[in-house]
Amino acid sequence: MENLSLLTDFYQLTMLAGYHQSGKSTQRACFELYFRRNPHDGGFCIAAGLEPAVDYLTNLRFEPDQLDYLRSLGQFREEFLEWLKGFRFRGSVRAVPEGSLVFPGEPLLRVEATIPEAQLVESALLNIINFQTLIATKAARMYVASRGGSVLEFGLRRAQGIDGALSASRASFLGGCTATSNTLAGKVYGIPVKGTHAHSWIMSFPTELEAFRTYAECYPDSCTLLVDTYDTLESGMPNAIIVAKELEAKGHRFDGVRLDSGDLAYLSKESRRMLDEAGLEHARIVASNDLDEYLIANLISQGAKIDIWGVGTHLVTSKGQSALGGVYKLAAAEVNGVMEPRIKVSSNPEKTTVPGVKQVWRAFDEEGQVVGDMLTLEDETVSDGERVKTYHPLYANMNRKIRGARWRPLLEPVLRDGQVVYDFPALTQLRARTVESLGLLRDEYKRRVNPHIYWMGLSPKLFEMRNRMLDQNGQGEV
Amino acid sequence: MENLSLLTDFYQLTMLAGYHQSGKSTQRACFELYFRRNPHDGGFCIAAGLEPAVDYLTNLRFEPDQLDYLRSLGQFREEFLEWLKGFRFRGSVRAVPEGSLVFPGEPLLRVEATIPEAQLVESALLNIINFQTLIATKAARMYVASRGGSVLEFGLRRAQGIDGALSASRASFLGGCTATSNTLAGKVYGIPVKGTHAHSWIMSFPTELEAFRTYAECYPDSCTLLVDTYDTLESGMPNAIIVAKELEAKGHRFDGVRLDSGDLAYLSKESRRMLDEAGLEHARIVASNDLDEYLIANLISQGAKIDIWGVGTHLVTSKGQSALGGVYKLAAAEVNGVMEPRIKVSSNPEKTTVPGVKQVWRAFDEEGQVVGDMLTLEDETVSDGERVKTYHPLYANMNRKIRGARWRPLLEPVLRDGQVVYDFPALTQLRARTVESLGLLRDEYKRRVNPHIYWMGLSPKLFEMRNRMLDQNGQGEV
Repeated sequence: MENLSLLTDFYQLTMLAGYHQSGKSTQRACFELYFRRNPHDGGFCIAAGLEPAVDYLTNLRFEPDQLDYLRSLGQFREEFLEWLKGFRFRGSVRAVPEGSLVFPGEPLLRVEATIPEAQLVESALLNIINFQTLIATKAARMYVASRGGSVLEFGLRRAQGIDGALSASRASFLGGCTATSNTLAGKVYGIPVKGTHAHSWIMSFPTELEAFRTYAECYPDSCTLLVDTYDTLESGMPNAIIVAKELEAKGHRFDGVRLDSGDLAYLSKESRRMLDEAGLEHARIVASNDLDEYLIANLISQGAKIDIWGVGTHLVTSKGQSALGGVYKLAAAEVNGVMEPRIKVSSNPEKTTVPGVKQVWRAFDEEGQVVGDMLTLEDETVSDGERVKTYHPLYANMNRKIRGARWRPLLEPVLRDGQVVYDFPALTQLRARTVESLGLLRDEYKRRVNPHIYWMGLSPKLFEMRNRMLDQNGQGEV
Repeated sequence: MENLSLLTDFYQLTMLAGYHQSGKSTQRACFELYFRRNPHDGGFCIAAGLEPAVDYLTNLRFEPDQLDYLRSLGQFREEFLEWLKGFRFRGSVRAVPEGSLVFPGEPLLRVEATIPEAQLVESALLNIINFQTLIATKAARMYVASRGGSVLEFGLRRAQGIDGALSASRASFLGGCTATSNTLAGKVYGIPVKGTHAHSWIMSFPTELEAFRTYAECYPDSCTLLVDTYDTLESGMPNAIIVAKELEAKGHRFDGVRLDSGDLAYLSKESRRMLDEAGLEHARIVASNDLDEYLIANLISQGAKIDIWGVGTHLVTSKGQSALGGVYKLAAAEVNGVMEPRIKVSSNPEKTTVPGVKQVWRAFDEEGQVVGDMLTLEDETVSDGERVKTYHPLYANMNRKIRGARWRPLLEPVLRDGQVVYDFPALTQLRARTVESLGLLRDEYKRRVNPHIYWMGLSPKLFEMRNRMLDQNGQGEV
């Protein structure tokens, strides 16, 4: 991996130099990373990005090349650069495992470290986790819309940069896709790669039939033919069926056809009928062309006969919301050796933080479905079956009692004093966890329009502490 | 640079193997890369991405590591993998220089190469040029909205992946920004980096005044203070003015203040008044907080006193349109040693291609302003002052005569048989070209709402050839 120590907002470095110069570089603090709203007005998010984020943390160091660049800016003292040379991330991190359901206001990641350590890594942690979570969530929305169908990620050509493509392939697979077209993502992440041929293949032959035959000769056992170059029902489908029968006569099994334009509802139904009439009931229909979760659901409601959905641009750039607004906020700071909670009060109530080093507890009902989450202070525990009163973080007139639930904490130890203490599961296991997580969430939360709002409340202890700090906070006076 | 030979859609590789197996791997073809619509319903685009795209082309090779991965998929013959080992991009490329105005339907890049060479590189060329052009255009829109003010790019934490941030910083600077917060982009691309401190800096000190004083001690000659942590007008501004006067009493020059929340119009006017009353007329006001080109224009129209605009998320993810829909289409293919034009007819008239190997000519009036573009065949030339009739590519009832113009071709030779024949200007020169290009375009084309539509017509020769091919195209029959 390229050295990413400079992948940080410049103000982190000016602040680091300031902390160093003013003797504050050993003070410890706790920061939490969370988002305030689900993207796409949705009802949930899928956590993603932990493993690449930890890779970044554990590889963080300033080599001479990076220090020379900083020196060239003429803004830093030599003592600071010397100190940076020995800089490593030696903090502790807890995080929600990738593939888990997460909701607004819950820490996905908690960093406890010296202020300079915790501060320097803010920009890269946000970059990685914001984007991975955004795309895993978008993919999960498409997976849900497809009703267990197969969703392929085809986004490379319109993704936001090289890594915008590569890391989107990872997050898409984690979020429920079954394969990618991005060959490099296949190599780097072990994701299955898929792809057959383009219109240009067809156009480079004198006839469509010759193009199909040549392709079938090259790939007799993985032959999906693109049937819309000239006329799907008049030319593409009849030619594909000729070649499919030739293939099957030789003992091969024909994979299917791909539709990439036109009225996908109508064309898929007609194509299905033609395939079935030709005895090719097993052949599958792949559809693509600017699809998103809304179009997938709409096509299914029209009775479209589509087995596999190819999605590109709208998945990898998260059409409709191109960024998750994740933030990274100070929750506590060390004073005389003790961590003290910190609150940031804002005139915008959504932006006032919940103070203290925290844990997230999730409640499951007797059917195993999730029923609500509770934010607690780190040292609180909740017992199964315990009757718990929880308080809405924002609305003073909303609280909820949860009883008879099984409770599980979400934030797991990942790094302890800079050392990895976590087994990162394989990407296929993370995908399986996403699918399992979605199964724990009732359909009402997964609706694309006006989903039910998942409950996330504060524990009584946290609620009281927050209110006490608000009362004491001189800055909130009018 | 990491080996990017596998940064391609898998179907390019299955097609390559097919071309190889069917003896078509030496046939030559010409592909053109263009987009169909300006993003954000705007009136123009700024071309970007050429240098990174050419880096990719000239570094393209399959090393044992990549070949082993392809072999492991069990889908390719050993002869093909052997052939891939010697694969290089030996084609020729012409392109519009970065920082130039470009419009829908015009080739930004033209590739002439063997079909496998031209095909393999499609995905990465589109990825790089789509995103760079999208962001350079978004930055230019913000530059225009700021009326010559200074726009800083602060997008790292919400960009789409690591390279989504890094390459967005490049494109943003090219498109008119003056600096970035992304330190790595500063090192890699030589872009000026900017940044001071965050709210967390203020919160880590007992008082705002102490935090300001400590920052000013560290950076007496580049001191911009963030004034909105507690209360901008009651606390932040008075404290900043105390520290500014202390600094100036010691012979330093105070830089200014940053506003990051609240009503930026009101707060900037009041802050300006307070600074002026304190004799700090030279101090500048930086504003940030979810800004985009519409908000910048709106704040200016309200008389906001903002000197420097910090933009993040909405710039680097191109809020409102997260992808440029660039395409890469076959324009001509070799038959018996001669390049023959190719057309792809679609039932969607926007998607029917203009055939043939083409050039773009741009007309300038006597004031040097651009008045229209003309798509011609490669071998056509246009003389200054020549009276030219041009035809709308889509609407049969629209044509336009251009007379008395100075004409210049846009596509310049960049690679010849795989060798670079182009001097890539420094990024600061590309930025200067963008600023110059925007100066050549009348305000009506730069409006954010309902801009005038720039004229792009076909030459008579190209128009006739296109119509002849449409007539002859059996596939277009109903």
